Amino acid sequence: MRIALLGGTGDIGEGLALRFARDTSHEVLIGSRDPEKARDRVGDYESRLAAAGVEADLGGFGNEMAADRGDVVVLAVPPFYVRDTVEEVADRLGDAVLVSPAVGMDRDEDGFHYAPPDAGSVTELVARTAPADVPVVGAFHTLPAGLLADLDAEMDLDTVVLGDDPDARATVADLAGELDGLRALDGGSVANAPEVEGITPLLINLARQNDLHDVGVAFR
Amino acid sequence: MRIALLGGTGDIGEGLALRFARDTSHEVLIGSRDPEKARDRVGDYESRLAAAGVEADLGGFGNEMAADRGDVVVLAVPPFYVRDTVEEVADRLGDAVLVSPAVGMDRDEDGFHYAPPDAGSVTELVARTAPADVPVVGAFHTLPAGLLADLDAEMDLDTVVLGDDPDARATVADLAGELDGLRALDGGSVANAPEVEGITPLLINLARQNDLHDVGVAFR
Repeated sequence: MRIALLGGTGDIGEGLALRFARDTSHEVLIGSRDPEKARDRVGDYESRLAAAGVEADLGGFGNEMAADRGDVVVLAVPPFYVRDTVEEVADRLGDAVLVSPAVGMDRDEDGFHYAPPDAGSVTELVARTAPADVPVVGAFHTLPAGLLADLDAEMDLDTVVLGDDPDARATVADLAGELDGLRALDGGSVANAPEVEGITPLLINLARQNDLHDVGVAFR
Repeated sequence: MRIALLGGTGDIGEGLALRFARDTSHEVLIGSRDPEKARDRVGDYESRLAAAGVEADLGGFGNEMAADRGDVVVLAVPPFYVRDTVEEVADRLGDAVLVSPAVGMDRDEDGFHYAPPDAGSVTELVARTAPADVPVVGAFHTLPAGLLADLDAEMDLDTVVLGDDPDARATVADLAGELDGLRALDGGSVANAPEVEGITPLLINLARQNDLHDVGVAFR
């Protein structure tokens, strides 16, 4: 399977790229608005994987080309760019499953707060923006980017997978479950996304208030 | 310390009563709108504690009397009754810390959804309704009632403690941390409560979608 990470040069994209390349046999494609930047980061990722004893061959592309080639296309871009990115790659998605990990947040003196778009959640915004025949799945919202990108760090976390298409949800859940130390839980339909996305600002608040780093979540 | 559980005959009250009685040396007071019902349940709780090898002496009272006697007063009532209960006991709270574990939820065909009151969260509603000099702390929102009330079940969970008064927050965090297998994390001010309360409907969705029971949350 080919996993395309649009915005794969950013922090969550970095961690997903490294771990998918290390823990699975899938092909990992890094997408960026700037293909040159994508190729630079591929070089960096490959060196770090080599240092971890993993020989990996990642591809670097513009977002559109990465989307065109991906079987699973992850929108690893900041929430503000999600809609534009979906529109930009809409006619390149073909039979791909589109995955949304982004979360909208505000910050004030008390901490970080969940600030969903008018659609109700970023996952729902993606579902409304994507072509009707492209299944949209929310996943990876609560993974701490720093931990994900640190190949020495062991994960022992869950991710909740949401989507209205059960097959697409299962595809992404299987993929997520291939990452070492990650368990995918079925969260049901996209309508259930706000409660999952809302955990992300809480994780930042908990890290700040309790002097923790890279806080993720597990359900038990 | 005296812990008063208003609505202590309900499901979350039951679990908290049993575990505070078993795991701590604090005095546990069960409050109910009907004092007779409170005393009945005290008998039931004491038998179950005795069966677990714990000799406990709980008290059963009307909510107002329980609030009057409690150093920490927990609003273990359904969210719909929270405001009325606070108003009912307002002039009996004295120096007590008032604790809010309730969460407002809706249900539709997709699952359960967070439905906070206009105040933004139940914790915030309590803070606005309580007398200004009574510190309000949100806690215990994400503890599965079934697991809590099953004294054979081991917990390995977290609870997030929120409140604008750091001393009151610390008091409740210390108390929560006395329960076996429960870790209290500081969530900061009441403004951060929605993201914590929102986890409760998610836990129910995860249980339903993944055939799990009594799902709680841990941060790591």
